[in-house]
Amino acid sequence: MAHDMNTSEGVGRTGIWLIGARGSVSATVISGLLALRAGLVESTGLVTERAPFDAAPLPTWDELVIGGHDIVDTALEKRVEQLSEAGLVPASVLRSITEGLREVETDIRCGYHPTLHTGSQAEAAETLIGDLVDFRGRHDLRRVVVINLASTEPPVPLVDAHQDLSALEQALADPTRAVLPASSLAAYAALRAGCPFVDFTPSTGITLPALRELAALKGLPYAGSDGKTGETLLRTVLAPMFTARALKVRSWAGTNLLGGGDGATLADPEFAASKLESKARGLAALLGDDVTAPLHIDNVPHMGDVKTAWDHVAFDGFLGAKMTLQLTWTGYDSSLAAPLVLDLARLTAAAHATGRSGPLGELAFFFKSPLGNEEHRFAEQARELADWIQTLRTDLGGTADTDAVVSE
Amino acid sequence: MAHDMNTSEGVGRTGIWLIGARGSVSATVISGLLALRAGLVESTGLVTERAPFDAAPLPTWDELVIGGHDIVDTALEKRVEQLSEAGLVPASVLRSITEGLREVETDIRCGYHPTLHTGSQAEAAETLIGDLVDFRGRHDLRRVVVINLASTEPPVPLVDAHQDLSALEQALADPTRAVLPASSLAAYAALRAGCPFVDFTPSTGITLPALRELAALKGLPYAGSDGKTGETLLRTVLAPMFTARALKVRSWAGTNLLGGGDGATLADPEFAASKLESKARGLAALLGDDVTAPLHIDNVPHMGDVKTAWDHVAFDGFLGAKMTLQLTWTGYDSSLAAPLVLDLARLTAAAHATGRSGPLGELAFFFKSPLGNEEHRFAEQARELADWIQTLRTDLGGTADTDAVVSE
Amino acid sequence: MAHDMNTSEGVGRTGIWLIGARGSVSATVISGLLALRAGLVESTGLVTERAPFDAAPLPTWDELVIGGHDIVDTALEKRVEQLSEAGLVPASVLRSITEGLREVETDIRCGYHPTLHTGSQAEAAETLIGDLVDFRGRHDLRRVVVINLASTEPPVPLVDAHQDLSALEQALADPTRAVLPASSLAAYAALRAGCPFVDFTPSTGITLPALRELAALKGLPYAGSDGKTGETLLRTVLAPMFTARALKVRSWAGTNLLGGGDGATLADPEFAASKLESKARGLAALLGDDVTAPLHIDNVPHMGDVKTAWDHVAFDGFLGAKMTLQLTWTGYDSSLAAPLVLDLARLTAAAHATGRSGPLGELAFFFKSPLGNEEHRFAEQARELADWIQTLRTDLGGTADTDAVVSE
Amino acid sequence: MAHDMNTSEGVGRTGIWLIGARGSVSATVISGLLALRAGLVESTGLVTERAPFDAAPLPTWDELVIGGHDIVDTALEKRVEQLSEAGLVPASVLRSITEGLREVETDIRCGYHPTLHTGSQAEAAETLIGDLVDFRGRHDLRRVVVINLASTEPPVPLVDAHQDLSALEQALADPTRAVLPASSLAAYAALRAGCPFVDFTPSTGITLPALRELAALKGLPYAGSDGKTGETLLRTVLAPMFTARALKVRSWAGTNLLGGGDGATLADPEFAASKLESKARGLAALLGDDVTAPLHIDNVPHMGDVKTAWDHVAFDGFLGAKMTLQLTWTGYDSSLAAPLVLDLARLTAAAHATGRSGPLGELAFFFKSPLGNEEHRFAEQARELADWIQTLRTDLGGTADTDAVVSE
Repeated sequence: MAHDMNTSEGVGRTGIWLIGARGSVSATVISGLLALRAGLVESTGLVTERAPFDAAPLPTWDELVIGGHDIVDTALEKRVEQLSEAGLVPASVLRSITEGLREVETDIRCGYHPTLHTGSQAEAAETLIGDLVDFRGRHDLRRVVVINLASTEPPVPLVDAHQDLSALEQALADPTRAVLPASSLAAYAALRAGCPFVDFTPSTGITLPALRELAALKGLPYAGSDGKTGETLLRTVLAPMFTARALKVRSWAGTNLLGGGDGATLADPEFAASKLESKARGLAALLGDDVTAPLHIDNVPHMGDVKTAWDHVAFDGFLGAKMTLQLTWTGYDSSLAAPLVLDLARLTAAAHATGRSGPLGELAFFFKSPLGNEEHRFAEQARELADWIQTLRTDLGGTADTDAVVSE
Repeated sequence: MAHDMNTSEGVGRTGIWLIGARGSVSATVISGLLALRAGLVESTGLVTERAPFDAAPLPTWDELVIGGHDIVDTALEKRVEQLSEAGLVPASVLRSITEGLREVETDIRCGYHPTLHTGSQAEAAETLIGDLVDFRGRHDLRRVVVINLASTEPPVPLVDAHQDLSALEQALADPTRAVLPASSLAAYAALRAGCPFVDFTPSTGITLPALRELAALKGLPYAGSDGKTGETLLRTVLAPMFTARALKVRSWAGTNLLGGGDGATLADPEFAASKLESKARGLAALLGDDVTAPLHIDNVPHMGDVKTAWDHVAFDGFLGAKMTLQLTWTGYDSSLAAPLVLDLARLTAAAHATGRSGPLGELAFFFKSPLGNEEHRFAEQARELADWIQTLRTDLGGTADTDAVVSE
Repeated sequence: MAHDMNTSEGVGRTGIWLIGARGSVSATVISGLLALRAGLVESTGLVTERAPFDAAPLPTWDELVIGGHDIVDTALEKRVEQLSEAGLVPASVLRSITEGLREVETDIRCGYHPTLHTGSQAEAAETLIGDLVDFRGRHDLRRVVVINLASTEPPVPLVDAHQDLSALEQALADPTRAVLPASSLAAYAALRAGCPFVDFTPSTGITLPALRELAALKGLPYAGSDGKTGETLLRTVLAPMFTARALKVRSWAGTNLLGGGDGATLADPEFAASKLESKARGLAALLGDDVTAPLHIDNVPHMGDVKTAWDHVAFDGFLGAKMTLQLTWTGYDSSLAAPLVLDLARLTAAAHATGRSGPLGELAFFFKSPLGNEEHRFAEQARELADWIQTLRTDLGGTADTDAVVSE
Repeated sequence: MAHDMNTSEGVGRTGIWLIGARGSVSATVISGLLALRAGLVESTGLVTERAPFDAAPLPTWDELVIGGHDIVDTALEKRVEQLSEAGLVPASVLRSITEGLREVETDIRCGYHPTLHTGSQAEAAETLIGDLVDFRGRHDLRRVVVINLASTEPPVPLVDAHQDLSALEQALADPTRAVLPASSLAAYAALRAGCPFVDFTPSTGITLPALRELAALKGLPYAGSDGKTGETLLRTVLAPMFTARALKVRSWAGTNLLGGGDGATLADPEFAASKLESKARGLAALLGDDVTAPLHIDNVPHMGDVKTAWDHVAFDGFLGAKMTLQLTWTGYDSSLAAPLVLDLARLTAAAHATGRSGPLGELAFFFKSPLGNEEHRFAEQARELADWIQTLRTDLGGTADTDAVVSE
């Protein structure tokens, strides 16, 4: 695999490998990319299409190629039809992208799930790595960004084998153990294949010390975790307002109603724990620990992909006056998430092209639990992101592409 | 009137002269200052009591003295009792500040109102100026900040005499004309008396070219206009979120329910026009002109000082998906406004002490229609304000106080 | 035109003649009837399909035939496609009813509008009557119920010619006058053609004394006015709760956001006046006159057929405690209205079949401003309707059909 | 204890014995009764003060005497001061009722709590009975209505001793068992003392078969359970609307935020279970079992006596169109409950005076889980109550008072 070192063409042909490639968010990402490529839709929701990001030489829609892993086998086309009935993909778009969906379908491989797999996790990882290398080769891609969009997993207790890479690899080789949750095995495979990794879910993923060690070793960037698309987005916008105005928030209660696969997964308290922890951490970081903050996620199957969040904020003002703010946010979860996935793919690819490695804290703007950054305030995150794109742009404007992929 | 040039003591004894001194906001400002001075309440809502503002040598609670103009004669104590019944002033505070309220009462003078006054506006201005000079002298104040908290006036058509100072003063001398609305006559008097002027209302106030000319001539700072306390505060926080995330806002509808004197005034469409214009300008500045933005202010006498605002935002996401955000904000108008008035008094006094003049654009953080600043995004305004306080602090730390008052 | 007098077959073949037949509500009525006939959809929203109404021998879906007047010429099929894109008509239904829509299309005639017509209103009425008689004859219908679904008109001042039938007919013959608004001319033509008339809008329609006189003369029933589908429905359900619990409602504020043709029409204050009056009357009837009740209708074109209403109720409880209730209702206006139109057609046809004439006050359940009934409380209206259907059922069970049509 | 049989004086002097007499609801009941007696407040919230109830010869405010049990010893006056600070009792009322509160204080006795008591429950019951008999005698009362307002208990598993009276009394005598929860021991004592019992809480109370048997034996009426004051009140008003309009409710989610003692108690999932079950039963009774209905009760201490409930209803309309209704109810829990307690005391006393016994199903209007009535629809309940008061009134108008008390 040889790339010329010239970046006059920008970041170049880039693969996006979606873990959970047949889910609602993935199907919306894929439909959206096809529609954008065909000029059928506007760039609403895409941060990288507006100033100052649009001035950076990010991969164009034509340069992005999608593949992925999934453990179910619903045809992509079928899934997109469901999204169309639910109001997420216009009927006119659906008619025009059928061919494109079938092409992407050919790049979706069976993913890893502990209940489906026999043999050691090391063997399973080899298969995943093979899929990635094959995808990169077949499509002549300069790099592949792996993005986790699979169902949220329950939190996983840290064990010794998670603490360093050699212990981890020893455990992976043991056919009697399943030391990594699926999200972390996906991250391991991505890194081993020389691919940057982005976790859009609150699952364990790349957060284990052993995997961070591997990323450092390979000089690969990564980002996460848990895409910030709705209630938490609002919280990171509004909580700083209360602080800036010296208003004392006393309680911030939230209820989330959602259906779809996400609703079903999060209806299980064990699985919801990851999401609830991720949400709670942010609020405490913004307002301190003494805010009463009950939080619920309820599965309402009938709502399908619609997600409704109600927040109730009680705060004290001058002389102790008691006041409240209520919010109701109603959106399509996949519509909110999908453009951010495309943005993250482009930005992470650019970071990789310029040789950045480790956690991309400047991408905190996109996440509920930003890796490599303690900043939760949305406006500050937006500014950090804008500043970062300027440095990326400068780096990409040069003649030499550090192109980490070739070092694999 | 002689002041030493030494600022080792900070900004020093400062007067706050309230136009509309017997209204709800003023009564809350006065009660609050007395309670703060006595250590009865926390500093909730006061921006200048938190970092980084608390590090600047602003006037202490003990150094602030309040007086003002009003055209009604309800006893201040009576007004504060009403506020207490409505839940704005705790009963325990009320019991402790009675004496203080009576003292402030002695510094309230009859204000100007066209229907109450005979003779030229120049003569009326002389009386107002006399009140200010007398107040400053009696209390040995280094400066007096005049703050307009009177009822909102209807918009005033610009006439020739508003365009330059000499034309204005000629018109003021004409006993058959009332060329200035009350808010602008108050601003004129303040400037003539060497006092900085802050307009917390959307009335005409200091915005006329002739008055800006006078402020420049006198080297005086001013700030305004229209305190940002509720619905607009939220809008300037949330609208930038939609922009940063490339979400397309299609409509932003608002309904405000309020009682009290403010409700009664704004129930008159002519008077409400100023407020509605002020609110609409901000939204257009943040989101552009093509957002459908119906806006209503309804008088609901029964609600008293409680103000409830409902906002409904309809926006498009990726692939045109239609989504909404709803907000309900319920607060006590006077509780939200009062601490900002104290903040503005302190900061404007400090600006004056350091010799700043003209519109204080850095105070945009506090206003719906900021003078001297086009920035409406709340987080940016907060940053500008924090930056500014650092420069003020540096300036105040020196030994020479430019102390504009003495140059009068 | 000869009908046998035997009702063993029930009410029999019935025409529904829609004024405004190409509008959103009509298109939903027509699509719905076709889908019901084909068994494609459930009977959600149809009151006459549930107990005790389903036991009455009302016209079946196969016995209902639709035609109508409109002044625009958008193809019905086109309009239904728009509704489908907006989420009101499932794509699967749309595909199955195309043929049916084309058939209905052949029964839509050009309606009356003052700006489109030359000659006297009497001549215009003759054309309308001819359309109705022709429709009834061609389809061999036992009766035709005329239902007004056209855009809301502004309120019309009462003139002498509205007061009695002979004065009215004299004025109609005068080619220089347009004494009746379009809704009333439609009612006049309906009555002259021997058809019951239902007004689903707040327009003047049949409410003029001269037209009521005509209905009495012809022995025809009529019903109205202004379909109760959303905010007012909730109000007539909730206001009686406050009364029953002796809670004192102090204010009931409302804001309605809607797009579509209805939004555009009601954006004009003159046109909205009819609707606002209709809504306000109901609240006063339920709670008395001393409730502050600001009410707004805002046109938000982007929202299309979605209608969102926000209501804020402030009430006093025991010892004067201040409390609030807020409601947000989000629905598709046409989806809410359409089944009621089918219900009204069936019930009015049955009333006609049993020889009832005059205002059908028992249909108050369906209307904001019920004709012939002062009862606004929803639960009471529901009971009156249920009682009425029992008497209708008894009457329809007999052997003789009074069948007013044949007496024409 | 001798009563004349003449009811020309109406129901006569009546005691109200409150279990939990020092809690917020009780304190509001007591304050309210004192204020009503003194003519200080209006009768807002009192159903028995409006037609048709006001025409019945119910006990007057002067004829009602309050006493009660509690296990804490906070002075009543102190508790009312707290309520006043929270906005439930006007300061002017507080000043006027101090004397009255002290009088009631003398009639509050220490109640039963398993952790405070040694000896058998039979002995404990004797003490409670003694308190009731003493109260009735000292104040020369014709009857005493016992009303449970104590903190909600967790659900209790049914045991054999609950099934019949003799088994129960055997178990009560056993000093090693605590067979009854406190609410049921209170009910037992009330019945033994010849007092009607009303349960305003969802605790076990009188619902055990053995206690119902005792009530029948003693010819005593009882009512319950779980006062319907907020969210459930709205649900029983709104759910019938959806049914009457044939709209298909798919989900009805609810979140309740509350502070105060009630919030603290219900924060414990075990205790909240009773309340959640009580709420859920009603919704299923109204809409069927296939409605997704997540429900949460969150303790937000800062909110004090304010209770905010958010309900989100998703429903289908014609052609399957998806629509929603949202509600936010904000009220003072004690203000909503207290007048109902006074209403229930008066009505239950009247029922007792006319000799009614067993569950008073006609009082379903007041309860979430009505005893003796399956009807949950509010409007129907209101009608049943109005019909019942007519029969009571007829019975009370006669000359003979069956006066069950004397039969003790």
